[in-house]
Amino acid sequence: MTQRSIRLFQMDATVGDFSVNLQKLSRAAAQARADGISILIAPELALTGYPPEDLLLRPALIHKLEFAETKLCEISEGLTLCVGLPTLAPKKLRECDRGDLSFRPSSLHNSLVVYQYGRRLTAYHKNSLPNYQVFDERRYFVAGTEPMVCEIEGIRIGLLVCEDVWVPEIVEATCALGVDLIMVVNASPFAENKISERYWHLTDRASNNQIPIAYVNLVGGQDELVFDGGSFAVNRQGKIVAQANFFAEEMLDIIWDGKDLAKSCTAALPSKDWLLYQALVTGVRDYFAKTGFKKAVLGLSGGIDSALTLVCAVDALGAENVHAVMMPYLYTAEISVTDARRQAEILGCEFSVVSIEPMVRECMDVLGPFFKGHPVDATEENIQSRCRGVLLMALSNKTGALVLTTGNKSEMAVGYATLYGDMAGGFAVLKDVWKTRVYDLARFVNRDREAIPERVISRPPSAELAPEQEDSDSLPPYDRLDQMLSLYIESDQSPQAIIDSGFDSEEVKRICRLVDINEYKRRQSAVGPRVTARGFGRDRRYPIANRWSF
Amino acid sequence: MTQRSIRLFQMDATVGDFSVNLQKLSRAAAQARADGISILIAPELALTGYPPEDLLLRPALIHKLEFAETKLCEISEGLTLCVGLPTLAPKKLRECDRGDLSFRPSSLHNSLVVYQYGRRLTAYHKNSLPNYQVFDERRYFVAGTEPMVCEIEGIRIGLLVCEDVWVPEIVEATCALGVDLIMVVNASPFAENKISERYWHLTDRASNNQIPIAYVNLVGGQDELVFDGGSFAVNRQGKIVAQANFFAEEMLDIIWDGKDLAKSCTAALPSKDWLLYQALVTGVRDYFAKTGFKKAVLGLSGGIDSALTLVCAVDALGAENVHAVMMPYLYTAEISVTDARRQAEILGCEFSVVSIEPMVRECMDVLGPFFKGHPVDATEENIQSRCRGVLLMALSNKTGALVLTTGNKSEMAVGYATLYGDMAGGFAVLKDVWKTRVYDLARFVNRDREAIPERVISRPPSAELAPEQEDSDSLPPYDRLDQMLSLYIESDQSPQAIIDSGFDSEEVKRICRLVDINEYKRRQSAVGPRVTARGFGRDRRYPIANRWSF
Repeated sequence: MTQRSIRLFQMDATVGDFSVNLQKLSRAAAQARADGISILIAPELALTGYPPEDLLLRPALIHKLEFAETKLCEISEGLTLCVGLPTLAPKKLRECDRGDLSFRPSSLHNSLVVYQYGRRLTAYHKNSLPNYQVFDERRYFVAGTEPMVCEIEGIRIGLLVCEDVWVPEIVEATCALGVDLIMVVNASPFAENKISERYWHLTDRASNNQIPIAYVNLVGGQDELVFDGGSFAVNRQGKIVAQANFFAEEMLDIIWDGKDLAKSCTAALPSKDWLLYQALVTGVRDYFAKTGFKKAVLGLSGGIDSALTLVCAVDALGAENVHAVMMPYLYTAEISVTDARRQAEILGCEFSVVSIEPMVRECMDVLGPFFKGHPVDATEENIQSRCRGVLLMALSNKTGALVLTTGNKSEMAVGYATLYGDMAGGFAVLKDVWKTRVYDLARFVNRDREAIPERVISRPPSAELAPEQEDSDSLPPYDRLDQMLSLYIESDQSPQAIIDSGFDSEEVKRICRLVDINEYKRRQSAVGPRVTARGFGRDRRYPIANRWSF
Repeated sequence: MTQRSIRLFQMDATVGDFSVNLQKLSRAAAQARADGISILIAPELALTGYPPEDLLLRPALIHKLEFAETKLCEISEGLTLCVGLPTLAPKKLRECDRGDLSFRPSSLHNSLVVYQYGRRLTAYHKNSLPNYQVFDERRYFVAGTEPMVCEIEGIRIGLLVCEDVWVPEIVEATCALGVDLIMVVNASPFAENKISERYWHLTDRASNNQIPIAYVNLVGGQDELVFDGGSFAVNRQGKIVAQANFFAEEMLDIIWDGKDLAKSCTAALPSKDWLLYQALVTGVRDYFAKTGFKKAVLGLSGGIDSALTLVCAVDALGAENVHAVMMPYLYTAEISVTDARRQAEILGCEFSVVSIEPMVRECMDVLGPFFKGHPVDATEENIQSRCRGVLLMALSNKTGALVLTTGNKSEMAVGYATLYGDMAGGFAVLKDVWKTRVYDLARFVNRDREAIPERVISRPPSAELAPEQEDSDSLPPYDRLDQMLSLYIESDQSPQAIIDSGFDSEEVKRICRLVDINEYKRRQSAVGPRVTARGFGRDRRYPIANRWSF
């Protein structure tokens, strides 16, 4: 058998946009033909984008799929195209699934379809449908039950879809059919440490079965998910022989030498901070691109969260498309205004100062009769924050710029944020980034240039909503806070288990309680890129009315 | 065999509150013993409340369940208690489920457990796990695969949980075991027409199998769900022989005469409007009770939506706990202020007038330089609405009253609402009520008294955000709008299908597009009671970034 190249198309698909996604596949096929490459593989649900959510329940989907299948046949002229898309499943299901049927136009498989020389050759249906974390695949799909091998140009290729390859038994069942190579198409979202997890699984599956595996992933942002791409391949020994770049649409060619995958291009694995930062930038860029926005506006406070958000926005959208607005009040330090202005100058984006003082004064004035006899509390702080929200939203409405919110995960966790105030906006860039990681990233973006004025990073964090206020007045230091929050939220540990691992009992109970009672705020928060193993959003579904006690 | 009474406990369980739920079960058991009734049945997941969502993923659940099982044994002293709760499933699952396991502390069944005379007798595990609409049961549970019969005091009782009884094959498999009677425990949320659907299924199952069936349901509100109770029983012929009340916690005793269920107490079936209105009142009352709020504050505009919301709030919380705030501006008609004041007087709740004029003026003033050269558009309207939001939230923060939002489903569908303005609040009472149904309910609450001044109902609807503004300036008449929206949203029809059924082509396309592009607003909206077959919220999961074309 001669050496043969197989091309993995690490594609950025747009949810719902069959037309653009088909065009991309068509161009990729034309390019492959021009390059003399005859096998092209595109990711899981490349036709619909991932996750299409309830669009899959629309009856119009059936006709769209019929049309798409015709187009995909055409695209496959002169080569073999393996691509992920939903396909119609036969109506007959497990008896106990019957209840669902009346709510669905038909039942669907999550499939990997092989088109060859202008016709449909075969299809594999995903066996393992994830229905945990951010995934709801059993809401939409019926699981396939059989492994599948497809001989393409003399190579016996085992076909799998995403989660399947995480299940040793499914890989073994596929290998039992006698395969030369396994091809797994994925829509695997980014999370910190996810890449090494993928390496671990693939290495284990390949070496245990003595079968090379090629892994092609989606890339790009979709609402709260960010796909990092990073397609790769491992040989029979489980060694990585090809590695695509991260966070970029690209083609990765892998080489089948007749017995194994040969060593080909391997991109270096970037640093943890680079990956996280690119995930955020990609999340912002694609949310704008896919919702049709060009310009962003945000409140720049002189603090580290908005400073980092601004750098992300500028990197994602270009300085000319970002408007930073400083909205001072009585408690805003002079250095906050200075540093905000200076950062906007450094980055070259539009900068404005709009005082909230007159609005806050009038608001307090009309509410005076109602506040009489009540002590000053968080209400007055929230009024400041909400007046800022009104101003930013007005600028957004008038200019068509989308408001970026600037709160981080630590704040979202304990409710240290004002609903309709600093939480007002369309995309929450740092929503899943702990405050301690915000510091890491601030230093990361400052590695070559001062993108964030050093004083913004070094001064003690403050919301500046009351005189001499500092975050540490009401919260533990962020390194300790983030550890407790991570144990409670990402590891689901009980407060007692957290206390037992060495934290103060009262502090743990107070923090966990803050997390619990602030679900109502998070439920109304903007979407933002999920970058940890458990973000807020589809990932963590808690009741608001909830009397769970520790 | 002698005649025997079986008691159905139509219970209002609180999510997460094992302690209160166990107390309720304990009191019900004591009462049953006192009344000489020896079989007591409580609803699906009565121990945890429904839906417990991701609380089921917390490792601490295991210990809580162990403790609860001990308590439930105690509670069953001297009688038989059948109650719904999660139980631990063996680790061995279908191979293709393996991928999930690392994300779960353990696997759970959704079970109906039988406790008798102080010990656990047996358990049935729900076979059909709904994973559509608002349900995510396959995220949490592993399906049971076997039917179950349990002989209790000489009666062979087939055990089922909720969705199971909607699947004819599961009922038949249960009957094949030889049963006298089927007992199905439910957490079946209210929706318009749901009651007749339940009747239809039960009548069909009973008469086809010649087996009487008793149906016990949860009651009460939980976030966006409202359980209507309405427990009932059908005899072998499928005739209703017992019917509990709706929207009230109560006991329904049914009589086993040795061969069939005998005719016992049957409440009358209330009107469609009564049911819908009670669903809203229950939703409000329980959201407050279960989140710990006592008082509500809302913006009373002189329009029909806020007027109906106010009546609901007063019926749910008592007039003494409701504060209505009229926030006039230049475009507020004098009759709006008059009618708002009059309604508050009629209902006896606190009423205030707070002008937004000074705040809006200052806001426009500071934004003047940015608005120069731009025409007046929705921005100026949103500023008015958002200033109202700031005032209401300030009153909420200062007094501890929860803000009720007043928008209806028609507005939420087309985005005719201001994010952080009239959408600001904790609970959206009319979120799932079409504008045409708002009119029905306004007339319904006015049937005996003028709870809403007639002029509020009869005048043309207007947001009063611009001079001489009426809703009909920018939207089709509501009867037509609601029909189109219902076809698009609740029946998933394509715009073309809606056009084909007789609506104007351009109008349909414009309206459907408005629905699509306003997903970002709905995503940040407050929860509100779901009362139709498809509400916004967990029920309708659409991507925000979404290029689906018709």
